[in-house]
Amino acid sequence: MTRNVKELIGQMTLEEKASLCSGLNVWQLKGIERLGIPSIMVADGPHGLRKQKLDAADHLGLYNSVPATCFPSAVGLASTWNRSLIEKVGMALGEECQAEDIAILLGPGANIKRSPLCGRNFEYFSEDPYLSSEMAASHIKGVQSQGVGTSLKHFAVNNQEHRRMTVDAIVDERTLREIYLASFEQAVKESQPWTVMCSYNKVNGEFASENKALLTDILRDEWGFEGFVVSDWGAVNEREAGLEAGLDLEMPSSNGSGDQKIVAAVRNGDLQLETLDLAVERILNIIFKAVDNKKVNASYDQDDHHQLAREVARESMVLLKNEERILPLKKKGSIGVIGEFAKESRFQGGGSSHINPSKLDNIYDEIVKTASNASVQYAQGYVLENDSVDVNLVEEAKKIAMESDVAILFIGLPERYESEGYDRVHLRIPENQRILIEAIAEVQPRIVVVLSNGSPIEMPWVDKVKGILEAYLGGQAQGGAIADLLFGTESPSGKIAETFPKQLRHNPSYLNFPGEGDKVEYKEGLFVGYRYYDMKGIEPLFPFGFGLSYTNFEYLNLVIGKEEMNDNETVNVSVTVKNTGDVAGKEIIQLYVSDVESSVIRPEKELKSFEKVDLQPGEEKEITFTLDKRAFAYYNVDLKDWHVESGLFEIMVGKSSAEIELSGQLQVYSTVAIRRPVHRNTTIGELMSDPLFQPIVAQALAKAKEGSPLGNMSESMGNSEMFKAMVKFMPLRGISNFFPEKFTEETLDTLIKMLNSTIPEAK
Amino acid sequence: MTRNVKELIGQMTLEEKASLCSGLNVWQLKGIERLGIPSIMVADGPHGLRKQKLDAADHLGLYNSVPATCFPSAVGLASTWNRSLIEKVGMALGEECQAEDIAILLGPGANIKRSPLCGRNFEYFSEDPYLSSEMAASHIKGVQSQGVGTSLKHFAVNNQEHRRMTVDAIVDERTLREIYLASFEQAVKESQPWTVMCSYNKVNGEFASENKALLTDILRDEWGFEGFVVSDWGAVNEREAGLEAGLDLEMPSSNGSGDQKIVAAVRNGDLQLETLDLAVERILNIIFKAVDNKKVNASYDQDDHHQLAREVARESMVLLKNEERILPLKKKGSIGVIGEFAKESRFQGGGSSHINPSKLDNIYDEIVKTASNASVQYAQGYVLENDSVDVNLVEEAKKIAMESDVAILFIGLPERYESEGYDRVHLRIPENQRILIEAIAEVQPRIVVVLSNGSPIEMPWVDKVKGILEAYLGGQAQGGAIADLLFGTESPSGKIAETFPKQLRHNPSYLNFPGEGDKVEYKEGLFVGYRYYDMKGIEPLFPFGFGLSYTNFEYLNLVIGKEEMNDNETVNVSVTVKNTGDVAGKEIIQLYVSDVESSVIRPEKELKSFEKVDLQPGEEKEITFTLDKRAFAYYNVDLKDWHVESGLFEIMVGKSSAEIELSGQLQVYSTVAIRRPVHRNTTIGELMSDPLFQPIVAQALAKAKEGSPLGNMSESMGNSEMFKAMVKFMPLRGISNFFPEKFTEETLDTLIKMLNSTIPEAK
Repeated sequence: MTRNVKELIGQMTLEEKASLCSGLNVWQLKGIERLGIPSIMVADGPHGLRKQKLDAADHLGLYNSVPATCFPSAVGLASTWNRSLIEKVGMALGEECQAEDIAILLGPGANIKRSPLCGRNFEYFSEDPYLSSEMAASHIKGVQSQGVGTSLKHFAVNNQEHRRMTVDAIVDERTLREIYLASFEQAVKESQPWTVMCSYNKVNGEFASENKALLTDILRDEWGFEGFVVSDWGAVNEREAGLEAGLDLEMPSSNGSGDQKIVAAVRNGDLQLETLDLAVERILNIIFKAVDNKKVNASYDQDDHHQLAREVARESMVLLKNEERILPLKKKGSIGVIGEFAKESRFQGGGSSHINPSKLDNIYDEIVKTASNASVQYAQGYVLENDSVDVNLVEEAKKIAMESDVAILFIGLPERYESEGYDRVHLRIPENQRILIEAIAEVQPRIVVVLSNGSPIEMPWVDKVKGILEAYLGGQAQGGAIADLLFGTESPSGKIAETFPKQLRHNPSYLNFPGEGDKVEYKEGLFVGYRYYDMKGIEPLFPFGFGLSYTNFEYLNLVIGKEEMNDNETVNVSVTVKNTGDVAGKEIIQLYVSDVESSVIRPEKELKSFEKVDLQPGEEKEITFTLDKRAFAYYNVDLKDWHVESGLFEIMVGKSSAEIELSGQLQVYSTVAIRRPVHRNTTIGELMSDPLFQPIVAQALAKAKEGSPLGNMSESMGNSEMFKAMVKFMPLRGISNFFPEKFTEETLDTLIKMLNSTIPEAK
Repeated sequence: MTRNVKELIGQMTLEEKASLCSGLNVWQLKGIERLGIPSIMVADGPHGLRKQKLDAADHLGLYNSVPATCFPSAVGLASTWNRSLIEKVGMALGEECQAEDIAILLGPGANIKRSPLCGRNFEYFSEDPYLSSEMAASHIKGVQSQGVGTSLKHFAVNNQEHRRMTVDAIVDERTLREIYLASFEQAVKESQPWTVMCSYNKVNGEFASENKALLTDILRDEWGFEGFVVSDWGAVNEREAGLEAGLDLEMPSSNGSGDQKIVAAVRNGDLQLETLDLAVERILNIIFKAVDNKKVNASYDQDDHHQLAREVARESMVLLKNEERILPLKKKGSIGVIGEFAKESRFQGGGSSHINPSKLDNIYDEIVKTASNASVQYAQGYVLENDSVDVNLVEEAKKIAMESDVAILFIGLPERYESEGYDRVHLRIPENQRILIEAIAEVQPRIVVVLSNGSPIEMPWVDKVKGILEAYLGGQAQGGAIADLLFGTESPSGKIAETFPKQLRHNPSYLNFPGEGDKVEYKEGLFVGYRYYDMKGIEPLFPFGFGLSYTNFEYLNLVIGKEEMNDNETVNVSVTVKNTGDVAGKEIIQLYVSDVESSVIRPEKELKSFEKVDLQPGEEKEITFTLDKRAFAYYNVDLKDWHVESGLFEIMVGKSSAEIELSGQLQVYSTVAIRRPVHRNTTIGELMSDPLFQPIVAQALAKAKEGSPLGNMSESMGNSEMFKAMVKFMPLRGISNFFPEKFTEETLDTLIKMLNSTIPEAK
């Protein structure tokens, strides 16, 4: 339906305009009845719809939402590395929103996993911005294909829960661009989310909710975002400053307080009416988009969605260890299922993403069902509600483990260990679970651990078990998915989207997490996740991108389409992957790029593309990746743009960040020349390495040295390397420091003018 | 002699004043004959006098200086950890200066070893500011006790040679204070050097030579420095800006250019005459101090100084490995001496500290002399002048090694590998030396390596040799010292003043060294050297403070004098150390302090005291350390002062940073209360933890929640940890974000006023 939104705004009073810029209550936007503007409703939940009942006493509705399908948390979604599957999840979520009359689903979250301690990591995708942004884009596309909006959150640099409402994240510009913003950038550009949610924290001194650079200059002007920006619930600091910066909608309701401030600011001239009109226009555009896309009497099939949840859960789980091919298990013999998690499963994280599942598989029941010819015994092993060791439970578990052919241990983090709202302070599992593992290992060498957790844990016991399946928080159908994988109905095909460190202190943010008082400095800079472990040579427990399969894949025939290219061209890279094992399986092929030599600090390698393929035994497929400028570029803070430095680049294709199977090189030429003005502290080395300046400087230098006692120093010095270095690192004015007789300040000024006059004008 | 310097200045013309602020030539200051102001001379060389012959063509005089005693380089001096011995070295240097009519010796250098790559590390003491500053203070005291001045250099943050004249070192304020400036601070306060030399580089955007914060506010106003500041040779950028900032003397001569600028600046009012007068006064004070302390017809005994050089060299060497007690060697049997370094020894570093030794021990000759009953064979093994492998030399060396009872391999860095002027780019020894070690190890299991190098190297071959003696650059008498230690004339007693990493990339500065273009960011912050390896759990090759002996020491009876103290008191800590071995030896006892719990980021432990004791077999001594506020304090950037946070501190006493033998705890109370003004973003958690604010905030919170649907959220939420965290981390204004009905902006303002009014005024 076409409407003239501008005309509609023209009919509004100042108070009406301001009123549209904040919520009606916790979950609804305001409408204006007399102008036919309806009130739409939003709901939490990137991995499932959390629609609060408006009449409930608990208006944040954290635990009493309408039943909905609980898909795996974002950490699991990302571990699938499967764009189309994530899109399917998004579509299902969109269908549920239509059925429940929700206009906008508040998600996905694209914050980078800077530290494994962040309490909300389970809601985020990855430590890598490319993977994270691709996953977010797919999610958004899926939801929005159903005529339901999303809210890409939490923009930006919200990487910890500790003091999240006040902490100031200090990040250098290049890191901000290459890591923290890049994780949002592609998602915005590719999938145009209806809304973006600003985060609670400050970024380099300014609240995200008042950060014009973020909310307007970058998000809209650079990236082309067309929707509205909504505050995270309670993220508004000063309402007028927020509106000015580009924060359109305040949530939840401020009981009119924020609206009054806007009205007053417009009245006294502190805020331009155009700024308010623009915010109202953006909000109205989305309200009407929701109205126009509303499907009347929409419904969805809960069983279908449950099946999809199981499929996604299967792909989201990662086989971390499989010594002596202990997995898949046989569906016969005797099996000991140990650990309370097997019956009281943890399938989602705590906080705003916590939903009320429409159905819930029990892991133990699913194992019994699948291993139909086996005798399955269960032992609780530990209590979930606290960390204390119950010796009787341990002894009972040992007995059952001893009597079984194999022990499956269900291990992980209880909900109290990780949640929105606070960060962990260590990476350990509860002591009663650690002791259980040690005890079982004494009596049963065949142990498979199944992990339920939202973020990495330390595994000092890793050598005592033969198999580890990382199930993360697998959603309502995880029980079936775990059984499918344990008994080989399907091969695991997930790969971890984050590094598992051997010890917390190995993590790059360790020295500066979660900061001091209200300030956290991202001093590790670009070196987040595998970018750090690579460079520092610190061996992780499991590297980024790692995951095993029940089959094997061979990588063949890497072809880089060009030997050289300009940075405004693209290049195709193809590789053939073959399933050389006995069973069907899916492989995630990862492409990393490395700048062989660079004048700026760069990570050893960075993920620039990936693909997931499904292969039958013996089958092979050719995969082609297309790389453009961005795959080779770094963010140049002087140019304020992405820039490729001319030179050799290495293209690496592999199974994980630590298993590069094939690699080749490519020469890329920059089409942007960088030549800075010459000044008195430009070094002689820099000038001499530029053919434009070399002859001029060489002549000046020779003249300055003529007849000077220092002039023939080079010959008298035993160590000529030192003399060469001294000249190379000497600034132009250094010539007058050392040869003042022949090279006066006037000579220096003249030389600088001459050098600058030779620089060709930029086109 | 008393003079009225101010009156003298009153008699000068503006031009005469300006003329005193720059050198006459490369090495002399100007005088003013008509006023009886003489020209004094300065000379390079912290570990030996490098007096240039003024009539020589090479005015920098790098390789033609007057013969002088070459003591071990600073890296070796620091490894002695022996204050009084360093003071003796200083006294000897002072004597030589008097004999050569040198008024000021340009040194010592107190820059921190941030990276093992820095080409000038051999001239610096340590990675630890306490040790470095103590060594510098002792050196200065020694030289100045002879009526000769010193120049503490290079002030400040000059930790690399790469682009040293233009690079901008970006360091956060706390790190600057606790690490980089602390290394100078104690030396200035304790030993009052006659002059301080500013460095070439920029510090946080400003050239050190123009940095008022460094040269005036901190150096003079805070630390009480009374002498003059001289530029490093060629460090002047803009002369007037330098003078204004506190740079008194420009070196070398600018041929009048700098003087003219000063005159012009005073004339046009850009520079106050008082500023110039003050600089002239400082320079004159030192000139007359030199004149008054001049010893006529001074001389020194070269043999005595050579003997001292040998004594110091012995204490400076560090026994890094002694498997199966291969050392000391017997003075009989057959010994293979292998490696060109044994005959063409490297005993000092390259650059301005390079001196012309008065005498030079040959290592090989000294070994032959000492091992009088042994048959000693020599093989060159490799060539020093390049890295290529000479198979014949290797074969010859293998043959001799095979024929000997033990092989002593002389290994290290040729002069071209490390020098003033440029940094290393890796930590490897030349390939031909590495291959030699591997080859000898194939035929001779009994290998002792003696190292000649100015800074750590990687040792991938460490497991293939039984003994390693780090001889560093041991000065002209190192040959005798090496023989003394190898054959047990004395037990080694040095300990490394720097961490030896297993791999370069483990070093804390690795990700940011030597920076990009003209900027280097010290992103590792406080975590330099062992402070980093400790925290990150990265095992070094050899830890800071480590060194073996031919005897054993036992640590007994740690007594911490108080259980608790205020930060304005001191505490005595005593420990008894016993020589439990068979031979005499010296032990370096190190005291580290750790803040058990802190609201700011702090290293795990920091060196706060040390003592070296000489013990006969069976002898024991009690050592007492006195700790004051500084031992427990961190630099608080808000207070702009050192601050102790009340709480428990751990006192650790040990043999090295990795071998703590005894420890105990102590409660320290701060006498400074820090309570910041309350504002809208002060968190509720912070306020509730302060008894002053707690009741007021609790009441306000209860009132806000009264009757609100969100008020009873805590009960409805499954995860109460999350609710508690949400409240704790919520800013005051968050109450109005979530409870706008009862808690308006006005309520908020009133509450903030009330809270601030309860804060008692600071005394």
